Amino acid sequence: MIRSADNDKLKTIRKLHDRRWREKLDLFVAEGEDLVDAAWEPEFLLVAGEDVKPRLLDDVSTVGSGTRAIGVYRRRWSEPGGELSVYLHGVHDPGNVGTIIRSAHALCDGPVVLGPDCADPYSPKAVRASMGSVFARPPARAAAADLSRRLVGLDVRAELTLAEIDPQPPLTLCLGAEREGLPDGFAADRARIPLREGGPESLNVAMAATLALYEVANRMAAHA
Amino acid sequence: MIRSADNDKLKTIRKLHDRRWREKLDLFVAEGEDLVDAAWEPEFLLVAGEDVKPRLLDDVSTVGSGTRAIGVYRRRWSEPGGELSVYLHGVHDPGNVGTIIRSAHALCDGPVVLGPDCADPYSPKAVRASMGSVFARPPARAAAADLSRRLVGLDVRAELTLAEIDPQPPLTLCLGAEREGLPDGFAADRARIPLREGGPESLNVAMAATLALYEVANRMAAHA
Repeated sequence: MIRSADNDKLKTIRKLHDRRWREKLDLFVAEGEDLVDAAWEPEFLLVAGEDVKPRLLDDVSTVGSGTRAIGVYRRRWSEPGGELSVYLHGVHDPGNVGTIIRSAHALCDGPVVLGPDCADPYSPKAVRASMGSVFARPPARAAAADLSRRLVGLDVRAELTLAEIDPQPPLTLCLGAEREGLPDGFAADRARIPLREGGPESLNVAMAATLALYEVANRMAAHA
Repeated sequence: MIRSADNDKLKTIRKLHDRRWREKLDLFVAEGEDLVDAAWEPEFLLVAGEDVKPRLLDDVSTVGSGTRAIGVYRRRWSEPGGELSVYLHGVHDPGNVGTIIRSAHALCDGPVVLGPDCADPYSPKAVRASMGSVFARPPARAAAADLSRRLVGLDVRAELTLAEIDPQPPLTLCLGAEREGLPDGFAADRARIPLREGGPESLNVAMAATLALYEVANRMAAHA
């Protein structure tokens, strides 16, 4: 039973709140019993009251009091693939990245592909937002140019709607940062989600990704 | 120019971080130029460097350094209505409530109706997640029983999918808390979003609301 905050495992957990340490050690943390149950084999697992004093576990948790378990895991990455997948460029918010990983797991067969400048999918917040889907289907890392498959970029200024594009697989839906969108010259067909006049110009990026996956997956199934 | 943290306006802003004070004073804050631009007439507005020392404004901001403007506004509530709207029961996360307000503004004509035990749509986090849609279309407050229109509850265990329900307006889509769902005995037809086998059991509540609005709005338009 760990009784001192000076313990090496607790120190490792605290370090892994920081992206640089996650990259250096190739490890990350999952907090809470639901995530720990969804996870792969841990490097180590601390259960409150069994392995460690509950107060000490709370102290290294990003969710605070009442944390029952924290596991430390090696990172894994998928290869890009599948009939339908999502590519993210510059999506900075870890909650959005985690939520998109969850939605993709629910709606398409390919992993989420992370391009440049995205939030770390293995940050505590992203892992939590994924609700365990990051374990079921780890994200991939790639540049769009290396995907060698048809890319359709979500773009509020596009002429075609998502319902009007050819849903022939394999296809990757590409989304950019909320304000900036995809960079100019990003090589992809473009399509938009039709929104009501007088409403907001765009949806939250996680909403847009989920909705686009749903629409295209349905059309792929209808054309199959 | 306000030069002291002891100023009454700054004290009011600080109080309004707390739901009880928002309810007592019937006021709330919007932080940042984009939200202030989208807002209705403020009770008062503080611009960094013009009305107040920048550091003092940062100190009362929930987003931290670099806040350019904070406005204080009276709350407003819509009446339930529209051909298509959303009703939320027990949705605790303010980010989800704000995001759903934004999606509803983009995809349907009725306001978001807040039932019991929802996050405050006028908390700083919800206002921010709404990206200004809370000003364009303030939420309504009502009990489901008082809506006197057809209710369709999202329910992962429902037999029918959303595509199979009659899209006759007026219709209100009802969503419950993420884990608990809608309470037993909640009087509504039930429908589910079809998800892949082997994936997560459900979507994030804001994703589910957005996707359901999109699906039903499209079917309403096709049947009109």
